[in-house]
Amino acid sequence: MKTLLIALSLLLASSSTALADEGMWTFDNFPSAKVQQTYGFLPSAAFLDHVRKASARDAGGCSASFISPQGLIMTNHHCVVECVGQLSTPQQDFVQTGFTAKRAEDEKTCPAFEIDQLAQIDDITAEIQGATVGKTGDAANLAIRAASAKAQEVCGKDVAVRCDVVSLYHGGIYKLYRYHRYTDVRLVFAPEYAVAQFGGDPDNFNFPRFDFDIGVVRVYENGKPAATPDYFKWSTAGTKDGDLVFVSGNPGSTSRELTVSQLSYIRDVQLPETIPILAELRGILEEFQLRGAEQTREANELRFFIENDYKAELGRQRALNDHAFFKQKVNEEQKLRAAVAAKPKLAAAYSSAWDEIAQLQIVRTHLAPAVGALAGIFNQGMLGYAQTLVEAAAERQKPNGARLPNFTDQALVGVEQQLEAPAPIYPDLEQTTLTLGLQQVREQLGTDDPLTKQVLGKDAPADLAQRLVSQTKLADPAVRKALFVGGQAAIDASTDPMIVYAIRLDATSRRLTKDFEAQVAAPTRAAAERIAKARFAIYGTSIDPDATFTARLSYGSVKGFDNNGTFVPPYTTIGGLYDRATGAAPYKLPQSWLAAKPTVVSNTPMNFVSTNDIIGGNSGSPSIDKNGEIVGLIFDGNIYSLGGDFGYDGSRNRAVSVDSRALLAGLRSVYQADRIVAEIEAARK
Amino acid sequence: MKTLLIALSLLLASSSTALADEGMWTFDNFPSAKVQQTYGFLPSAAFLDHVRKASARDAGGCSASFISPQGLIMTNHHCVVECVGQLSTPQQDFVQTGFTAKRAEDEKTCPAFEIDQLAQIDDITAEIQGATVGKTGDAANLAIRAASAKAQEVCGKDVAVRCDVVSLYHGGIYKLYRYHRYTDVRLVFAPEYAVAQFGGDPDNFNFPRFDFDIGVVRVYENGKPAATPDYFKWSTAGTKDGDLVFVSGNPGSTSRELTVSQLSYIRDVQLPETIPILAELRGILEEFQLRGAEQTREANELRFFIENDYKAELGRQRALNDHAFFKQKVNEEQKLRAAVAAKPKLAAAYSSAWDEIAQLQIVRTHLAPAVGALAGIFNQGMLGYAQTLVEAAAERQKPNGARLPNFTDQALVGVEQQLEAPAPIYPDLEQTTLTLGLQQVREQLGTDDPLTKQVLGKDAPADLAQRLVSQTKLADPAVRKALFVGGQAAIDASTDPMIVYAIRLDATSRRLTKDFEAQVAAPTRAAAERIAKARFAIYGTSIDPDATFTARLSYGSVKGFDNNGTFVPPYTTIGGLYDRATGAAPYKLPQSWLAAKPTVVSNTPMNFVSTNDIIGGNSGSPSIDKNGEIVGLIFDGNIYSLGGDFGYDGSRNRAVSVDSRALLAGLRSVYQADRIVAEIEAARK
Repeated sequence: MKTLLIALSLLLASSSTALADEGMWTFDNFPSAKVQQTYGFLPSAAFLDHVRKASARDAGGCSASFISPQGLIMTNHHCVVECVGQLSTPQQDFVQTGFTAKRAEDEKTCPAFEIDQLAQIDDITAEIQGATVGKTGDAANLAIRAASAKAQEVCGKDVAVRCDVVSLYHGGIYKLYRYHRYTDVRLVFAPEYAVAQFGGDPDNFNFPRFDFDIGVVRVYENGKPAATPDYFKWSTAGTKDGDLVFVSGNPGSTSRELTVSQLSYIRDVQLPETIPILAELRGILEEFQLRGAEQTREANELRFFIENDYKAELGRQRALNDHAFFKQKVNEEQKLRAAVAAKPKLAAAYSSAWDEIAQLQIVRTHLAPAVGALAGIFNQGMLGYAQTLVEAAAERQKPNGARLPNFTDQALVGVEQQLEAPAPIYPDLEQTTLTLGLQQVREQLGTDDPLTKQVLGKDAPADLAQRLVSQTKLADPAVRKALFVGGQAAIDASTDPMIVYAIRLDATSRRLTKDFEAQVAAPTRAAAERIAKARFAIYGTSIDPDATFTARLSYGSVKGFDNNGTFVPPYTTIGGLYDRATGAAPYKLPQSWLAAKPTVVSNTPMNFVSTNDIIGGNSGSPSIDKNGEIVGLIFDGNIYSLGGDFGYDGSRNRAVSVDSRALLAGLRSVYQADRIVAEIEAARK
Repeated sequence: MKTLLIALSLLLASSSTALADEGMWTFDNFPSAKVQQTYGFLPSAAFLDHVRKASARDAGGCSASFISPQGLIMTNHHCVVECVGQLSTPQQDFVQTGFTAKRAEDEKTCPAFEIDQLAQIDDITAEIQGATVGKTGDAANLAIRAASAKAQEVCGKDVAVRCDVVSLYHGGIYKLYRYHRYTDVRLVFAPEYAVAQFGGDPDNFNFPRFDFDIGVVRVYENGKPAATPDYFKWSTAGTKDGDLVFVSGNPGSTSRELTVSQLSYIRDVQLPETIPILAELRGILEEFQLRGAEQTREANELRFFIENDYKAELGRQRALNDHAFFKQKVNEEQKLRAAVAAKPKLAAAYSSAWDEIAQLQIVRTHLAPAVGALAGIFNQGMLGYAQTLVEAAAERQKPNGARLPNFTDQALVGVEQQLEAPAPIYPDLEQTTLTLGLQQVREQLGTDDPLTKQVLGKDAPADLAQRLVSQTKLADPAVRKALFVGGQAAIDASTDPMIVYAIRLDATSRRLTKDFEAQVAAPTRAAAERIAKARFAIYGTSIDPDATFTARLSYGSVKGFDNNGTFVPPYTTIGGLYDRATGAAPYKLPQSWLAAKPTVVSNTPMNFVSTNDIIGGNSGSPSIDKNGEIVGLIFDGNIYSLGGDFGYDGSRNRAVSVDSRALLAGLRSVYQADRIVAEIEAARK
């Protein structure tokens, strides 16, 4: 019997602990020994500490790194493009032309941009899990909400301090992440969209690739560049095939710990609903842009993100529809369940959790469409503002611990910043997207559904959207600020049609959300917490937790891959960029690069792939070598990286970086960005 | 052992032969005894014969029926809307206003419309199956092609005779269908789009429903109304809940006999590719229509069909993603395979066929994208003409039996009619859809694929589409006719860019199609033929063959259904139509109906549902009672009917008809279509 058990546990260990190069590791549980064993280099505590401190997060959904002690920050162009667009006008479109702050005073403030630098992590598992003991449904939600708000209170109300409660292993562990928050962020450099996104949507998530996807910003405090003593130096040598590379960043979310029933839900219910909506919106935007140059400018950024999402969702779907891939997920779950079943104590505590989650998918299938349909209209610009204002007024009257998570004292700092940011609004674009959202409510729920009737009344979606968007005053930040500051009284007195409309849906929206939280989210979290504990009992913490848009470190090496029988080498060159340019978008180079052709070295590495395990949110992460020096800038994954949401396939999942050598060559020879280059060079010394 | 076998065969019989009301039956194998057993009425041979002869097919993809001895034909508005649009101009839009030929001489010729009346069916299984004995791959394809062309030759080259080779049970049986072909078809009546499609896309495939989806045409011969002695009389009484109803029509295609591996392919590969393209095109068309009134008119019909397809594909996907539904398909296959395995002779002949088809799905996954991507551009209006002209010129030089199936002497009659029809062309719309098609080639295959390079060259999709569409002369039917008549010499001499472009892709297109036919289609057909034979051996012909857009008869009864816990009664009323009208499209009634409100009887049945087993292609079918009289006009199925592609679920799959009482009331009171009403009334006597 003993022999059998050992054999079983070996089998489990080999198949279910992290595979070669797999893992988005928290800094406190980094597998340094494994890295040493594989690559002959042992990351020291000092190394890890330095990397963590020199890394940063763009709260909008990207990663970043400090590259000088004067607050200079490197991230992707596609992470700063929203700011670049906001700073543009119909007369001066920096998205098209690029932007270089030749002098310090030319650096332009991004209207709504937040950089977070991780300062401290505290374990609060006992407080949070303790709060829900014996509670279920709505009571459990309220308890977690109160405990989380209480945990955040140690951080006070200083705008410069951000505190997030983070659930790792789906409730297995809770941590309080404390960040230094920078809200004065200024644009320093952005190349032309045409080269940042060279190859556009067709090349997105593909390799070979030739993008100059960099954006540079600087954080300020008290009107001056912030002092940032922790930063990355620039490597002079770069990498070569096979070299060890680390990627430090904030992967947004993965679903590797989900049960098979949850993955089936995603595959069979969720993705078939979301993908066509993205495709339809894409079609709408393509045509919308044909209305004129101004509409092209207005919709460029949204179109980029929609096309990016669309392709990513297709990739996730392809992975789940791959029978061998899905079978592996089924096998992994069966092995874990068998291991739990073999130990009576674990079996008694945890073995029912998987079936409970399976049952919850049925409830989810019933409740999710209404919640999703409403979310589809409340994620719209001005209607989103309206809903936030209406909710904020009501929530702020409650004690901190009783509020919805988005409106705790801590969270309100960010809410207020977003509400008051002078980001431009494009009414015709918003009308177009709101029309689609309203149409989708009817489409998902049916004409005869009470929610459809409440949302549309007697209106056609396009008419309602037109009326709301054309008559609201919420495009004006001052109006939003007055409504926020004025609180419930101001909301009650408002005749703004967007506010009135948000109020009309508020009670229903709250009820639907509450039902979903109580009947799906809370019991799912409770069951997932038990599965996490079962997994700890069997595997310990030899598995990294699912991504949560928090600081993670991955390791890997520069390495090509096999794409349907063709080997793709790991590097492309600047010469390759010129060869690929056809002159027709998205393969049309900007004048700056055409002019610089004689001065750049053709075989300079342009982009490269490595085996690092990353996912959306890692955009803007530094790729660094074992000296902790920058060798690249992550901006994408290949097509196989999309399945990485559900599992890492080291044979072909690849991270894509801009090579640090191309970055410097471009800044120097194409853009003559001498001030930035000088700052980077000075920081190296 | 014997007892066990009997038990097994009983189990098989009960679960795998047709369920209550299931079946799209050929007239020569109609289960009259079962109808008598269930409904107490025995359809006689004379009844079946009459129904078959009074039914017709719209070659464009619909069903129809004769409703007078003077060639008057009833079908759906959405089956004639293409003609209505072609007869319209920017100044006079009959799609919006409706059309009523008040006098005989007002009946307007549809530019390209073909009505087929089934005249004779001959079994040619021996000839076709015999031709492929010992042959595989390309040789088998050539043999079938030659045998089919030869079989058609008995029909001569008379335009009034159409002969189709029809494969039933996926190659289990071959028949030659001989039709009387009418090519002079004139529009008699069409209501306004707003009431024909009341509720538009949101209500499509839903019930309760309130549509007046009728179109009336007349077939002419020698410039005079054709004599059509076989026609349906109109019922005065209509139906009531529970009444027996027959539906005679031409269901387009079903996939009920496919293997589980083929269904998996559809679910996991095909639908995830096609649905987003439809969604994107839908979004493009929505926005395209916002360019102006003329663009709205141009794109209305295409948008209707795209939205219809899109929703249908979503419904098919939902059915295959329904775990219980799919499990049933798996169970059915396992039972059939077990029954085959239990009989050594059957096992030796047939048992490997399922695994062969499963292996072929892998080949299909590799070869289908290129074939599909090319089809996506060649299905475009003028490029479609170009490809047809290029192919026709080459094929016509070959002997009849060696040609591609679309270019046999028989088929060329239809080809020529389509090429020379003066159907209007909308260049801006065509440029838009061709752009999407070209973009999809790159998207499906990748920028680096040789086919993408061949299709696009150095062009952006929009630029190439713009150039081809704006410079071609193929919009002119006379130009097309000259190229057709001129044959290979004319094609070779042509400098029309669309022709030149079609030639540029011709060899590749032929090679890809040939590879797919040889490596996928031929071996699949061979294996499916063996499965069909296995099924005959176990079940006989107690199962109806998959739909093939040929004459079928279904039976059922007027019956409500359960929709997610809510019982939906079988009838709606004209009063309900008025209640549902909000004044905003697609719930905006035309003036004619608003004006007629005082004169129509509010509780007149408007639409009704019945359990008849139908599918796309049945649109326009007459619903008839046991007297062979018209009680309704099929125009849709409910949402659960979409899964009917893969299997019939009598508990909730419903066919939707316009009630004959609403039809007469509308023609009489709303449209004052006295001439048509008089003709219908006279025919009843």
